[in-house]
Amino acid sequence: MAEPLPISFLTDYGLQDEFVAVCKGVMLQIVADARVLDVTHDIEPGNIRAGALAYLRAIQYLPVGVHLGVVDPGVGTDRRAIALRSVDESGTRYFVGPDNGVLSPALAICGGACEAVLLDPSRWGVERTSTTFHGRDVFAPAAGALAGGVSLAELGTPVSPSELVPLILPLSRLVEETIHGMIFWVDRFGNAQTNIPGEDLAVLGVEVGMELLVQMGEARQRFPFVETFGDIEKGQPLAYVDSSGQLAFAVHRGNAAEEFALQEGAAVAVASAPLRLL
Amino acid sequence: MAEPLPISFLTDYGLQDEFVAVCKGVMLQIVADARVLDVTHDIEPGNIRAGALAYLRAIQYLPVGVHLGVVDPGVGTDRRAIALRSVDESGTRYFVGPDNGVLSPALAICGGACEAVLLDPSRWGVERTSTTFHGRDVFAPAAGALAGGVSLAELGTPVSPSELVPLILPLSRLVEETIHGMIFWVDRFGNAQTNIPGEDLAVLGVEVGMELLVQMGEARQRFPFVETFGDIEKGQPLAYVDSSGQLAFAVHRGNAAEEFALQEGAAVAVASAPLRLL
Amino acid sequence: MAEPLPISFLTDYGLQDEFVAVCKGVMLQIVADARVLDVTHDIEPGNIRAGALAYLRAIQYLPVGVHLGVVDPGVGTDRRAIALRSVDESGTRYFVGPDNGVLSPALAICGGACEAVLLDPSRWGVERTSTTFHGRDVFAPAAGALAGGVSLAELGTPVSPSELVPLILPLSRLVEETIHGMIFWVDRFGNAQTNIPGEDLAVLGVEVGMELLVQMGEARQRFPFVETFGDIEKGQPLAYVDSSGQLAFAVHRGNAAEEFALQEGAAVAVASAPLRLL
Repeated sequence: MAEPLPISFLTDYGLQDEFVAVCKGVMLQIVADARVLDVTHDIEPGNIRAGALAYLRAIQYLPVGVHLGVVDPGVGTDRRAIALRSVDESGTRYFVGPDNGVLSPALAICGGACEAVLLDPSRWGVERTSTTFHGRDVFAPAAGALAGGVSLAELGTPVSPSELVPLILPLSRLVEETIHGMIFWVDRFGNAQTNIPGEDLAVLGVEVGMELLVQMGEARQRFPFVETFGDIEKGQPLAYVDSSGQLAFAVHRGNAAEEFALQEGAAVAVASAPLRLL
Repeated sequence: MAEPLPISFLTDYGLQDEFVAVCKGVMLQIVADARVLDVTHDIEPGNIRAGALAYLRAIQYLPVGVHLGVVDPGVGTDRRAIALRSVDESGTRYFVGPDNGVLSPALAICGGACEAVLLDPSRWGVERTSTTFHGRDVFAPAAGALAGGVSLAELGTPVSPSELVPLILPLSRLVEETIHGMIFWVDRFGNAQTNIPGEDLAVLGVEVGMELLVQMGEARQRFPFVETFGDIEKGQPLAYVDSSGQLAFAVHRGNAAEEFALQEGAAVAVASAPLRLL
Repeated sequence: MAEPLPISFLTDYGLQDEFVAVCKGVMLQIVADARVLDVTHDIEPGNIRAGALAYLRAIQYLPVGVHLGVVDPGVGTDRRAIALRSVDESGTRYFVGPDNGVLSPALAICGGACEAVLLDPSRWGVERTSTTFHGRDVFAPAAGALAGGVSLAELGTPVSPSELVPLILPLSRLVEETIHGMIFWVDRFGNAQTNIPGEDLAVLGVEVGMELLVQMGEARQRFPFVETFGDIEKGQPLAYVDSSGQLAFAVHRGNAAEEFALQEGAAVAVASAPLRLL
């Protein structure tokens, strides 16, 4: 029998309840030697964008196979359940989850969907699913089936990829020498990633070694723009291009999010710092 | 060599310390290709009932094999260490853990124990275990051995299954048109599961679309009894039969436990709501 | 193809972000059937000593293979990235991580390094790594390569093991009938492990059943010195030799760290309790 496809798994289920284990158990009942890689299960409950961004940042490093993503505040509504197939130079991938955008960015950088189905549990013998736990009853069974070699077409009704729910990710924009963006992610270390691609700083004429003037809410803060933490004294703030290629803010051996009250979703405006007058 | 039995693993050890890894390492030293499925390790420290209920909710979805469950506030006392065997239509299962009830409900729905032993580490060459970490020294070795094909009888002294410590789970009861029950579980989303089987609402004459009057502590609250979240406006409370078949309370896209101060163990009384007069 | 070496993995990355999954994905891209055992990822951010001690406590129970440990507050500075080889009666082990001491204690009890290299990502075709995520770009690739059978020498430039950064672990010391030590670890249950080896209590003439007088900050507290929790009434404090062989403090079914305000790093002084006068 062929090796099953590896499965990656992202949810907002948390690890204190048994939800994740139940979904894995369902997959293991379908494919006894399934391998499941947990992306994270600690997405803020119901935060589709946070889940989508985490999957986006991770996807290129995950084994090519089945990508299951369940951040599903709309379970029990008429939101649709989908499975998708993408093909690019990395290979053929399958995406499974609710049709609410949580899979969209990761899918997009894998070439987009070339095939899509609306999941139909009756296809695998389930006449009635729970109304509140589709991870267990809809998504895990589909992911397990795909990992085991079942084709997408067997799992549901074809739907045009163009009809899928997109995720609108706010883009940063340049207005008169200032880039207006947003904090997209605050990580465990308090480092704050923006939606501003690091390469966009060039349009401000900013190079490593210069300073950025950053407006965050009512506060203005200067950040030296450097390569990495070690270019700055401990305890000092810095701006840098992070490991995903985005502009980010940190405090060397400190916590920038706490120090500057940076929260996911907060607006930031970034300009080249004028000469310091004082 | 035969494939080892899959192991599922539930504890209150948490993930911040290395306890879980050490137990897994011990199992892997016995069976190098052991597969361990984490049910959860975030059971509240020492909360036997919470661990037992999580295992109960999960068991039917876990791979048939060895079920290791260690919520063990009595480690270092004379509580007994046990391994059990059950047989039902799903197959032969082994349960390993302290004899304090944490395994009992899951075992019960797998047909109960047809064989039981008191674990005796001298059987596998250990003359002296630690006095405080039996997960490492007693339970993981037993689970690993069972996964590798060792028979239950080799691991200890036979004991009658009737002598095992049961877990008394409070049943809901009907008194004059009111069901008196208890909150059994508050999940990550703030949904609160009761010990009231969903089907028992029929005795109150309650059907989907009607309202429940629920007493929680000093407060009374009406909950529409619906199928699922989508039947209710966002921000509104609902009562529903959850994915385990129990009556539960939620707030659509909200947190019912926070909103109604629902805690595990809290008493609830449920009646059909009278006609609303105002 | 030979079975890959098992990998154990400890970080301070936490599980809410995708860092751990990305590192695992990188390893799986190198060795598709890699087996990774999570030691813990919840080391306090940047706390090298806490990471080193957790690895030290766990190492003897982990599968012999590759031990990846990334607590790396110096990422982005000139701290070095290393891989090491040790050989003792347990077998040949590889250690991979930053050269900041996080691996040192675990390495030491596995016989120390008999070979060491400074990791050089150009050896595996990477000309430019990120400046802030060496878990992904430096350490996981090296660990994956070693797991897959690549030799240490292929991964970097040889360096003398004597030049590696040690971790200075404060030793307890005896001064006039009193052992002065430190709290090394507070676990999930609030049990507090000291750096005082249990066997050292003999020099105080203390035996099980006697009492210890313990100075913690301004407070003095008597602890009965017993074998285990069950020797004490519920709610009462105890001193005992824990499952790692160290003197530790607990409260039976309580939380000693909360009750006595014990924190990692706090000084403690332990003497045999005089006769109780009152």
